[in-house]
Amino acid sequence: MASIRDVALKAGVGIGTVSRALNGTGYISEETKRKIMEAVAELDYRPNELAQNLYRNRSGVVGFMVPDLEHPFFSSLTKAIEMELYKHGYKCMICDVDRKQSREEEFLEMLQRNVMDGLIAGVDLMTDMDVSTIHRPIVTFDRNWGRMVPNIHSDHKRGGELAAQALLNAGCKRVLQFTPEISSDMSFMERYHTLEQILREHGVEVINIYTGKNQMGYDDDIRIAEVNANYLREVDGIFASDITAATCLRLAHQSGIRVPNQLHIISCDGLPFGRVLYPVLTSIRQNVPEIARACVNAVVKQMDGTRRVPMEQIIDVSFQKGGTV
Amino acid sequence: MASIRDVALKAGVGIGTVSRALNGTGYISEETKRKIMEAVAELDYRPNELAQNLYRNRSGVVGFMVPDLEHPFFSSLTKAIEMELYKHGYKCMICDVDRKQSREEEFLEMLQRNVMDGLIAGVDLMTDMDVSTIHRPIVTFDRNWGRMVPNIHSDHKRGGELAAQALLNAGCKRVLQFTPEISSDMSFMERYHTLEQILREHGVEVINIYTGKNQMGYDDDIRIAEVNANYLREVDGIFASDITAATCLRLAHQSGIRVPNQLHIISCDGLPFGRVLYPVLTSIRQNVPEIARACVNAVVKQMDGTRRVPMEQIIDVSFQKGGTV
Repeated sequence: MASIRDVALKAGVGIGTVSRALNGTGYISEETKRKIMEAVAELDYRPNELAQNLYRNRSGVVGFMVPDLEHPFFSSLTKAIEMELYKHGYKCMICDVDRKQSREEEFLEMLQRNVMDGLIAGVDLMTDMDVSTIHRPIVTFDRNWGRMVPNIHSDHKRGGELAAQALLNAGCKRVLQFTPEISSDMSFMERYHTLEQILREHGVEVINIYTGKNQMGYDDDIRIAEVNANYLREVDGIFASDITAATCLRLAHQSGIRVPNQLHIISCDGLPFGRVLYPVLTSIRQNVPEIARACVNAVVKQMDGTRRVPMEQIIDVSFQKGGTV
Repeated sequence: MASIRDVALKAGVGIGTVSRALNGTGYISEETKRKIMEAVAELDYRPNELAQNLYRNRSGVVGFMVPDLEHPFFSSLTKAIEMELYKHGYKCMICDVDRKQSREEEFLEMLQRNVMDGLIAGVDLMTDMDVSTIHRPIVTFDRNWGRMVPNIHSDHKRGGELAAQALLNAGCKRVLQFTPEISSDMSFMERYHTLEQILREHGVEVINIYTGKNQMGYDDDIRIAEVNANYLREVDGIFASDITAATCLRLAHQSGIRVPNQLHIISCDGLPFGRVLYPVLTSIRQNVPEIARACVNAVVKQMDGTRRVPMEQIIDVSFQKGGTV
């Protein structure tokens, strides 16, 4: 493959001149530029992006740190984020933390070593590393990394309200909700607190099943529904994440409990796979494309270094009518 | 942040000496090395990986080109590939082609420009670019990119045999299969051809519904089942990809067709979401972790440049008993 040296030789100029012409920096006469471009075309020269990156001190890569890429919410969000980054000329690197603190720390190290120009994080911070000392562009989705890191999340309060309203309209008197540990201060906890508060105000009993922090993915989400299958006969409403809600629907079918006649189920992400279930899952839908746009905008603004980024952005949710409520 | 210049100054040596010490190249006395490492620790110096990458002419990144990251098969495979690459010290860049030839070409360009050290591709080649001229490590999964590119795929023949056997054992007489266009020479076509051949040999009628090339993802896979819903009353067996099979199951429930009593359904990927369906989907399971391991090994071997890579590797499939057959 042709090198920058070959181009310089053919164009009869120095390597620095070729570099300036290709990077568009410094003055070069039109005549010289023409000769260089001819040499580039003739030799089919492709600039080594590693050299260009060093020159510009950027990698062109943004990392997306996820708790579990196989989880349908995070695969949808990763796709949407990749699409948005692509529009801005950035590539997307996957950082699947796989619940390991060592992996999380390694990705943060990579951010510091310029492997990535910025990071979008959708995971709880496990490390006790002080992220405010990193001084590199970071945005979190639905996670709290301290007051220096902008956070983007769905309007979970509204989500809790919409779910509560649907269960009240259906006449529920006893609702089971699957919720992460109660002490968490993560933004998504608001949907569970709001739902519980509204239902209790209306005299509806709420039973909480704690799913555990950072427990997410098919295995955990299915297991938590299965070990609590005995509750399904004792309640008339369920609020849970999509996979757990879908598993409750399967367990209800298995036990001859009719949905929605005897049991109403509403889930809280509204992922595409809810559409293959029978009945189709009624959900509070998070707006994944809008979340992706906000995350990417917030990290790109920081990388540009020119514009201020709001410390919190809240994205609308919507009620997605299915057949389970 | 401390630079290599600061480290050199503090250690009282030249920048080149620091660089040699950190990269482990060339002779440096133990005493000098100790002084440099002390300066590194004291200044909390972190080498700029961009510079190191240029020095080594590697990016440490492998791309994974997918047709649709949101598709549950590809999100599972992407996760598994990222995990395997991580073990080998490589990062994973997502290249979601989104059915656009321009994106495919751009990712191949990035491979040429050293943005990635290698590429794992799970997409049909749309471009008329001659990939054999790229001279960079490439491996395909389930796709045919010509005889110079190693291909890894599941044992689709065996998959077709296992599915045919299950439908025969269930006593099926008329089977509907959803298959990509008949003319394709992609490795995965073998499961459809094999199933059809075995069933016909046993006097079972097979009706083929062509799903179209590169049509994949929730929208397409659900739609193709829905527009063919009228067939469900006319057949007693179905073979389809997971999402289409799941949608057929939902349509059967909606029409009061009992599964598996009146209609047997078997799917061909065996993804985790089949476990939340009622009944649980009976499937031919592709071994995603094993596929990921083979893809990563094949691309790493090429990047190392030391070992030969077989041009075809076939990964075992298995019968996953559910409740739909």
